[in-house]
Amino acid sequence: MSDISIDEGDWIAIYFSNNRKYIVQVRKNKFLHTNEGTIDLSNLIGIRYGSKGITNIGEEFTITRPSIIDMYDVFRRVTQVIYPKDASQIVVLAGIGPGSRVVEAGTGSGFLTALLAFYVRPSGRVYSYEIREDVQKVAMENIEKIGLTPYVTFKRKDVRKQIDEENIDAVIFDLPDPWNALINAWNSLKNGGRLVCFLPTINQVEKVVTEMMYRGFLKIETKEILERAYKVKKGETRPETIGVIHTGYIVCGIKP
Amino acid sequence: MSDISIDEGDWIAIYFSNNRKYIVQVRKNKFLHTNEGTIDLSNLIGIRYGSKGITNIGEEFTITRPSIIDMYDVFRRVTQVIYPKDASQIVVLAGIGPGSRVVEAGTGSGFLTALLAFYVRPSGRVYSYEIREDVQKVAMENIEKIGLTPYVTFKRKDVRKQIDEENIDAVIFDLPDPWNALINAWNSLKNGGRLVCFLPTINQVEKVVTEMMYRGFLKIETKEILERAYKVKKGETRPETIGVIHTGYIVCGIKP
Amino acid sequence: MSDISIDEGDWIAIYFSNNRKYIVQVRKNKFLHTNEGTIDLSNLIGIRYGSKGITNIGEEFTITRPSIIDMYDVFRRVTQVIYPKDASQIVVLAGIGPGSRVVEAGTGSGFLTALLAFYVRPSGRVYSYEIREDVQKVAMENIEKIGLTPYVTFKRKDVRKQIDEENIDAVIFDLPDPWNALINAWNSLKNGGRLVCFLPTINQVEKVVTEMMYRGFLKIETKEILERAYKVKKGETRPETIGVIHTGYIVCGIKP
Amino acid sequence: MSDISIDEGDWIAIYFSNNRKYIVQVRKNKFLHTNEGTIDLSNLIGIRYGSKGITNIGEEFTITRPSIIDMYDVFRRVTQVIYPKDASQIVVLAGIGPGSRVVEAGTGSGFLTALLAFYVRPSGRVYSYEIREDVQKVAMENIEKIGLTPYVTFKRKDVRKQIDEENIDAVIFDLPDPWNALINAWNSLKNGGRLVCFLPTINQVEKVVTEMMYRGFLKIETKEILERAYKVKKGETRPETIGVIHTGYIVCGIKP
Repeated sequence: MSDISIDEGDWIAIYFSNNRKYIVQVRKNKFLHTNEGTIDLSNLIGIRYGSKGITNIGEEFTITRPSIIDMYDVFRRVTQVIYPKDASQIVVLAGIGPGSRVVEAGTGSGFLTALLAFYVRPSGRVYSYEIREDVQKVAMENIEKIGLTPYVTFKRKDVRKQIDEENIDAVIFDLPDPWNALINAWNSLKNGGRLVCFLPTINQVEKVVTEMMYRGFLKIETKEILERAYKVKKGETRPETIGVIHTGYIVCGIKP
Repeated sequence: MSDISIDEGDWIAIYFSNNRKYIVQVRKNKFLHTNEGTIDLSNLIGIRYGSKGITNIGEEFTITRPSIIDMYDVFRRVTQVIYPKDASQIVVLAGIGPGSRVVEAGTGSGFLTALLAFYVRPSGRVYSYEIREDVQKVAMENIEKIGLTPYVTFKRKDVRKQIDEENIDAVIFDLPDPWNALINAWNSLKNGGRLVCFLPTINQVEKVVTEMMYRGFLKIETKEILERAYKVKKGETRPETIGVIHTGYIVCGIKP
Repeated sequence: MSDISIDEGDWIAIYFSNNRKYIVQVRKNKFLHTNEGTIDLSNLIGIRYGSKGITNIGEEFTITRPSIIDMYDVFRRVTQVIYPKDASQIVVLAGIGPGSRVVEAGTGSGFLTALLAFYVRPSGRVYSYEIREDVQKVAMENIEKIGLTPYVTFKRKDVRKQIDEENIDAVIFDLPDPWNALINAWNSLKNGGRLVCFLPTINQVEKVVTEMMYRGFLKIETKEILERAYKVKKGETRPETIGVIHTGYIVCGIKP
Repeated sequence: MSDISIDEGDWIAIYFSNNRKYIVQVRKNKFLHTNEGTIDLSNLIGIRYGSKGITNIGEEFTITRPSIIDMYDVFRRVTQVIYPKDASQIVVLAGIGPGSRVVEAGTGSGFLTALLAFYVRPSGRVYSYEIREDVQKVAMENIEKIGLTPYVTFKRKDVRKQIDEENIDAVIFDLPDPWNALINAWNSLKNGGRLVCFLPTINQVEKVVTEMMYRGFLKIETKEILERAYKVKKGETRPETIGVIHTGYIVCGIKP
């Protein structure tokens, strides 16, 4: 992957001035058909990121490298996926950064896996557990699409039975019953390591917090992140009318 | 800074089983006085992270390495500081990760600077602009405390007049009048780069969005992140009664 | 309208045990067709409220008198209608109760008119201004449906030009430009009377608050009422996923 | 209580142009001491509502009749009191209006009692149950202050043991264990009558909803009302920084 010119196999973002964006993988003899016209992707190989082009009907576009958030547009979804508002919060709460070694379960469609892999680069690693083979396969393909495979170890194992890694910086559970994997998380974490659970119902929160306290986790916090989008226009600014009002609760604790 | 044993000069986190946490810098002949008793910090030099100790009155504690979020406890504050809920969102929205080159203004007390530096490690860099010398000095001290100085270039310059860097991945403005620095942000950003502005009033949002549209930024989004903390206790679970209900709005756009 | 038995012309609520509710006006030779079967409404005339019946396919139902909130199901809508969460707040903030004399503009579909009329009974009165004849006609029919016509004076006049009434307890504006009617509201209100404006954008809020301060209104407050609905089920309790996140802002002030 | 001139014993609202408000009972030989100077209340007896006066240091004030919401300033508090945002919602959800017959428990400091009494006037009635004599005494004094005693029957009885009234329009429970009084509420309510419970924890919500479903209540809804206050100033408009983020959940159901 060259940093300045487009290679075959690169995923690219194509922007039109009307705010439309397309994320696509460049292949020889592949065409992108849009409302703004058709683009022959073969022609893009070798040109520089940031270049402009025009479609067959004369619409101008700009090519950029996709951001990590653009994965939300290109990933195939086979499970409920975590929202950016929650994913970003989990990463920071868990203290995850370059070099971190993280255990995650379940992998699901791999959205959180991707974000974790993005942040632990280049020297860290994500150990992502998933029990369903079909789901894991989709996640692997998704992670491959954005070039983050080198930072992820996929495991088809049940964290409720075993976590192989030790001295881990953070454990992230997006599981229906994280309490059944608490002892494994505890043993896997280093001192000062963080456990973060993401849970849709308040009953799950109550159960896992109770168990985490019993197990000895400290600084246990429960929070919910709400996002409000605005329609901004001169003289007519207001929040969006309809939106997501609940995704899940985030529980975080420290192994002392 | 050894990765496994405590050196003089290290910042450490000391946890007691009652959930109290202390963040302190280890120095010879320095004592930490707490409600749980006194700790002679000289004695901690050379011991391993994760070790346990007892205070002069017999209370047991555990020593861990502080996380990036612990900086909120040790940083000196001379300006309004950005909350983790907003900072984490900004980092992810801006697509900032290991290797990113980021321009930030103003530096303020350096909280966002620290988080940005933490995430661009080891090969990226934060160029942080601040016009007030006294404020910049505090930020420099704060960043030094947590060992992130190698990843930050502090500049005492006005981004409204000039941004020196080019081909930047993201520009983050926590300024009262970001519209006055928009052209400099545009010129500094690479194609596909993100501009993120953090603004307390809706009037500022309206003004900067209008100007960003005029300037040619695409995919302009405005959002507000709200955090709700919960008191979780078996059979008595409820949200906290009082809390922060507003910090600021986040505006994000892409240079195509 | 008898208080205990159903008369022809009464609006009734029919409840099935599956939580379905139907609001219908009783007429001779009229049939209600539902998923739970058909009901011959002629047969309901003269029976007591609270009675049970069965449909032609054997489903049992209970008949009750509709509540004021049920009007949301039976009113014809020709304009954006105010939500119960906002309407109830406006009524209480404005100090409106039995005996109050209230000016309202515009009438719209008559939802707020209905609630106001319901609360000022039996000795108060609502003076409801609307400039569009077609809209006013629908509101009149809606108000008639629930028997509140005796408490409302409909006016097809522009409050920006004139408000006829004096010594009014409260003025409620659901108008795009309430600032153009402020002087008329002031002159119409008694001392200690309340003006309440309902506005979708923050720009309108800023403009009307500025003008209200200039005009001499005191205790000016601006608030937004957010409602969060929950799915409650043993062991699976959580907020609804999608919902309304914005309707409008409520501005209230007192004429001293 | 004359409607136009001030009598001894009246509660009045005194407004200064700086937005300060004082609620006080007029008595002979009583003085009100404020930051804006002293007012001899004897002098106000017999003058008209809406009149202006000046303090001993020359500050002008206006006298108005207090609104129902002003009770929040004059009521003595011996229990947690219900907020206007919740109280107004409860009144409307329960379908309470002029003429309604309402059972309420517990009385507490009487804030909700006052609002209910205000709305059922002149022909309705509030039956307010409280088991603690000291609490009930304060509520009685509070209700007397604003002249609503004629519409309230205070009962020192336990609704979990018995509710005396039948054919009631609405039952409002602000109790820690409403499920223990559900059968009495059911028997007391008329067909189509509403039960509304106000509860601080989600566990109580889950328990009462489960029991209400079992008991046969229909259209059971659970909602939370959140209020966001704004600081509105030309060019500097933003929500308040700190606020109440949780009071309680409102559960409503209908007896079919």
